[in-house]
Parts: sequence; C-alpha cells; structure tokens
Amino acid sequence: MRRSLVRTVAAAAAALLLVRRGKSAARADPRSEHGAPSPSAAWSSEVSLELVRAKAEAFAIERAWTQFHSPRNVLLAMVAEVGELSEIFQWRGECRPNLPSWHAKDRVHLGEELSDVLIYLVRLSDRCGVDLSAAVLRKFSMNARKYPVGRAYGTSKKYNAL
Amino acid sequence: MRRSLVRTVAAAAAALLLVRRGKSAARADPRSEHGAPSPSAAWSSEVSLELVRAKAEAFAIERAWTQFHSPRNVLLAMVAEVGELSEIFQWRGECRPNLPSWHAKDRVHLGEELSDVLIYLVRLSDRCGVDLSAAVLRKFSMNARKYPVGRAYGTSKKYNAL
Amino acid sequence: MRRSLVRTVAAAAAALLLVRRGKSAARADPRSEHGAPSPSAAWSSEVSLELVRAKAEAFAIERAWTQFHSPRNVLLAMVAEVGELSEIFQWRGECRPNLPSWHAKDRVHLGEELSDVLIYLVRLSDRCGVDLSAAVLRKFSMNARKYPVGRAYGTSKKYNAL
Amino acid sequence: MRRSLVRTVAAAAAALLLVRRGKSAARADPRSEHGAPSPSAAWSSEVSLELVRAKAEAFAIERAWTQFHSPRNVLLAMVAEVGELSEIFQWRGECRPNLPSWHAKDRVHLGEELSDVLIYLVRLSDRCGVDLSAAVLRKFSMNARKYPVGRAYGTSKKYNAL
Repeated sequence: MRRSLVRTVAAAAAALLLVRRGKSAARADPRSEHGAPSPSAAWSSEVSLELVRAKAEAFAIERAWTQFHSPRNVLLAMVAEVGELSEIFQWRGECRPNLPSWHAKDRVHLGEELSDVLIYLVRLSDRCGVDLSAAVLRKFSMNARKYPVGRAYGTSKKYNAL
Repeated sequence: MRRSLVRTVAAAAAALLLVRRGKSAARADPRSEHGAPSPSAAWSSEVSLELVRAKAEAFAIERAWTQFHSPRNVLLAMVAEVGELSEIFQWRGECRPNLPSWHAKDRVHLGEELSDVLIYLVRLSDRCGVDLSAAVLRKFSMNARKYPVGRAYGTSKKYNAL
Repeated sequence: MRRSLVRTVAAAAAALLLVRRGKSAARADPRSEHGAPSPSAAWSSEVSLELVRAKAEAFAIERAWTQFHSPRNVLLAMVAEVGELSEIFQWRGECRPNLPSWHAKDRVHLGEELSDVLIYLVRLSDRCGVDLSAAVLRKFSMNARKYPVGRAYGTSKKYNAL
Repeated sequence: MRRSLVRTVAAAAAALLLVRRGKSAARADPRSEHGAPSPSAAWSSEVSLELVRAKAEAFAIERAWTQFHSPRNVLLAMVAEVGELSEIFQWRGECRPNLPSWHAKDRVHLGEELSDVLIYLVRLSDRCGVDLSAAVLRKFSMNARKYPVGRAYGTSKKYNAL
C-alpha cells in the first residue's frame, strides 16, 4: 500500500506539472483561433479508470448482466451511446469551447451521455481483457513519436502526411 | 495535499470493496452464459481521468492544436476512432470474453484503438467544460436508480420497459 | 414487365414533381440561413436501391463472402465506414453546402466513403430480410405524420417537443 | 424521356442478370457458414436513390429545414441514427441472416432505423453536392479492382493484406 501511495502522489505531481506546462505554453501560443486556450479546470483527481472499471463490473454482477456483456454486445451498446451523444450536437452548428450559450439542462444531459460512452468503453476494455490504464499511457507515448512537435506544430495533417 | 491523500486512499478502498463485492456476487451467480464472470484483473490504479485530461491538453497545446479542437471537431474525431475500433471486430463473429483466440498483435492494436476513443472522449469533455470525473460518478448513481437490482436482475430490458 | 415500366415512369414523374414543388417552395422561403436552398441537381435516376442490393449480393457471392456477412458483422463494417466518413470532416470546422472550398480530390474521396456506407447499409438490410425500398417509403409517410408542416415549420425541435 | 426508359430497362435487365449470376454462384459455394446464401428476394425496383433524394429535399423545404441541414449537422444526425440502429442489435448476441427469431414488431422497427440512416445518408450526399447514384456505381468498379475474385475468394482480409 505504501508504494501505491507514493505512485499516486507521483502521478498527481506529474499531472500538476502537465497542467502547469500546458498553461505556460498556452500563454505563448499566438495562433489559437478560439482565443487563448482556455485554462481548463482540473477534474476531481481521485476518479481513476480502475474505479470506473470496478464500478461498472460491480453494477453488472449485482444485476446478473455479465451474461449480456460479450465484447460485441458492449461495443454496440457503446455505438448506441455515441449516437445519443451526437444527437445533442446535431442541429447546433459549430459550438464554441465550453459551450457558453448552452442551457444548464443541456450541459447536464451532455455530461450524462459522455459518461455513458465512458462506462461502456471501460466495460468493453475490461471484457476484452485489456488494461486500459496501461494502454492509454502507452498510446500517449506512441502519439508523441507519431506527431513530433517540430513537424506537427500548427497543422492538422495526419502523421503519414506530415 | 494531506486531505487529497486521504481521499485517494478512501477511493482506493472503495474500489477494492467494489471489486470484492463484485467477486462474491459473481460466485453466487448461477446463470452467467459466458462461464463464471471472469475475475477481472484490476488495472493499474494510478491513472485518473484527470491525468488523461491533462496529458491530452498538454499534447494539444505543445503542438498548437487547440485551434482545431472545437467540440464538434473532436466529436467527429472520436466517431472516426469508434469506426477504427469497430473495424477490428467486424468480420470476427461473436467474440468470447478476454478474446482467448486473438493474436497478441491484434490485442495490442485493440488497446490502441480503445485508447484513441478514450483520449478523444476525455478531450471532448474538457473542451465542453464538463468534469467527466464528477459526471461519471453521478451517472452511476442515476443508473442505480433507473435499474434497481430487484427489477433489473437477469434481464437486458431497457429501464422504461422493466 | 409493362406494368413495371408504367410504375417506373410514374415514380420518375413523382420525383420530378417533388423537385419542382421543392424548388418553388424554396423561392418562397425567406429564412434560409445558408442562402436560398440550393437548387439541388437531380441524380442519375436509373440507380435503384434494388440495383445496389443486387450488385452487393453478387459481389459477395462471387467472392464466397456470404459466410462473413452475418447481420452484426455487416453492421460493424458499416460503423467502420461511418468512421471513415467522419474522418473526412473532423478537422474542417463547419462546412458550407456543396463544399465550395474543398479540393476535387477530397470530394471524390467523400463520394467513395458515402458509397461505402450505402453499400453496407443496403447489404445489412438485405441480410436482415428487410426490403429497404418499401421501408423507406413507409418511413417518409411516418415522418410526415410526426412532423406536420404547420407545427414543424422552421424549428429543429424533436417531434415529441413540438 | 424515351432514352431514359431504355436506360431504365437496361438497368433492370442488368440487375436481373446480376441476381441470376449471383444465384448460380451461390449454388456452387460449398463453404458458407450460414447455410446456402439465402436467395434474397428482390426489392421493389422503382425506388431510386434520386427518388429518396428528391423526397428528402422536398420534406426539408416544406418545413423550412434547409437552414439546419449543413453538411456536418446532417452527418451528426446520421451518426445518431446509426446509434439507434445499433441499439436494436446490442443485447442480442450474434443474429442469423433474415433474423428468423425476431418478433414482427422488432423487424418493423429495424426497417424504420435502416430507413432513417438511408435518408440522412442521401441528404448528406445531396447537401455536399455529391451524386451518390454515380458515386456508388464508381465505387463498385473500384471495389472489383481492389478485390479481384481470384485473390479475395473466401477470405475476409483487407485488400492491402491480400
């Protein structure tokens, strides 16, 4: 347990550094179309992917739903939730960051649909035996190699067209 | 910082309890079609949603990509990744939990696509000003009310048909 | 065969009337945000849904692919194509009708991805035993009842909120 | 008009030939997992993509909805419908061709969701200035070159892995 605490503190510190680095870089970025990159508020840091995984698993087991949670069933359930998320955005035209013109009710609804996608995504990973925590850290490293800052700066081109 | 540590420990303990509760429930569940609900391995617990958020934000800022990350742009990028995830499953027919027959290479690829969806989902939440950490906990509570164990046990019916 | 010809001519005439009605209504519409509803060019009228169905079926049979075309396999293949279609639009921000600023190459690519979605959609219908030709006419009638012109005029609200 | 009739008859004849060719190939296919490729019933042949396009356009114009039908709005509406389609399949496990075990009510619902995807797909093409009729014929030709019968026979591999 002690080592795990140390790792947690280390991770939290890393996250703080990332945010801080992000913010100073933001100040220096003269090109951002949507105004200065908004100083995104940090989220409540104690919700881990593992907590979401364990909650989703417990939810299913308590209801005897594991039988329905084959990988492709859960994948299709996730696609259905992506559809509900898209529906919220479908007739709005382009939306500004932080959705300043949205009603509170719509923002709450948005949070619910984002959460539904997350829950099924995490559940899908779990049912496939994939440790999403490890996979996502690995993917960030891969992406950093695919999109080196020098060549990717300020362009939305795909890595194979850089 | 000390309070945050206490909260982290509390959350970790809650997660452990959830898993434990899940497992004992699992043993008692006689109906699971796919064999006894697999004792899902816990994931590396130090990856929080906030860490993913901060990393995705830093990645974008370092490359001056914030200008491209309007909510609907990121949403469509996520839909594109859901497509790549679906492509992995498309010709396989039904897949067993933990994908025992898959090649190691395909499992790694799967982890990458799951991660891409996660990264854009978290980024979308962030660009919309939604605290996904808070939203997902709230959604689990909602779901528990929508699907009370007594009525939802063993059925895949939608809440409005229970 | 003669009756079928008569029906084809009748359908073509109906389509012409629809377009014409559409265009005169367009002239009278003072509110359209994107300029006068563009006088959409009619498409080559001889491509029926049945032709697409028969071509997709023949393509699969010639390659002994029917074995792979279970309903959910084809559905996931379609979701994958929807992802590729979304990718074309993901970093562009809002796009004007007829995509005046797009390169010819991108428009051709767009036509290919739209076609891929169509082919799998038609194939999915066929593998499910659904006559999509009949279903779509029926759906237009349903939609007309759900969205009566009087109440739906000029609003993007959902039918249950009209 | 006479030339168009001739073309319509020619297209219908071509479709018949395709189906016939398909069926004889089907008889010779010994490997199909889902039984002999089902002799798919032909659909009502008079519904052309152009008819769907014209009806969708007229529907929008009559309700002054053209203002909402920007390409990305319609794309997201289509993604939402793909989600509703996926929801029908999500908890069912693998489904057999023609869905023999489904209730009549569910099959009707399926036809409605397939139609909704079709209508938005056609509408998206129209709003993008893409002639989907021409594009789909072109795509079938491309696919035939990408997947030559000799190399693609009996395998679900992607063209770049053949």
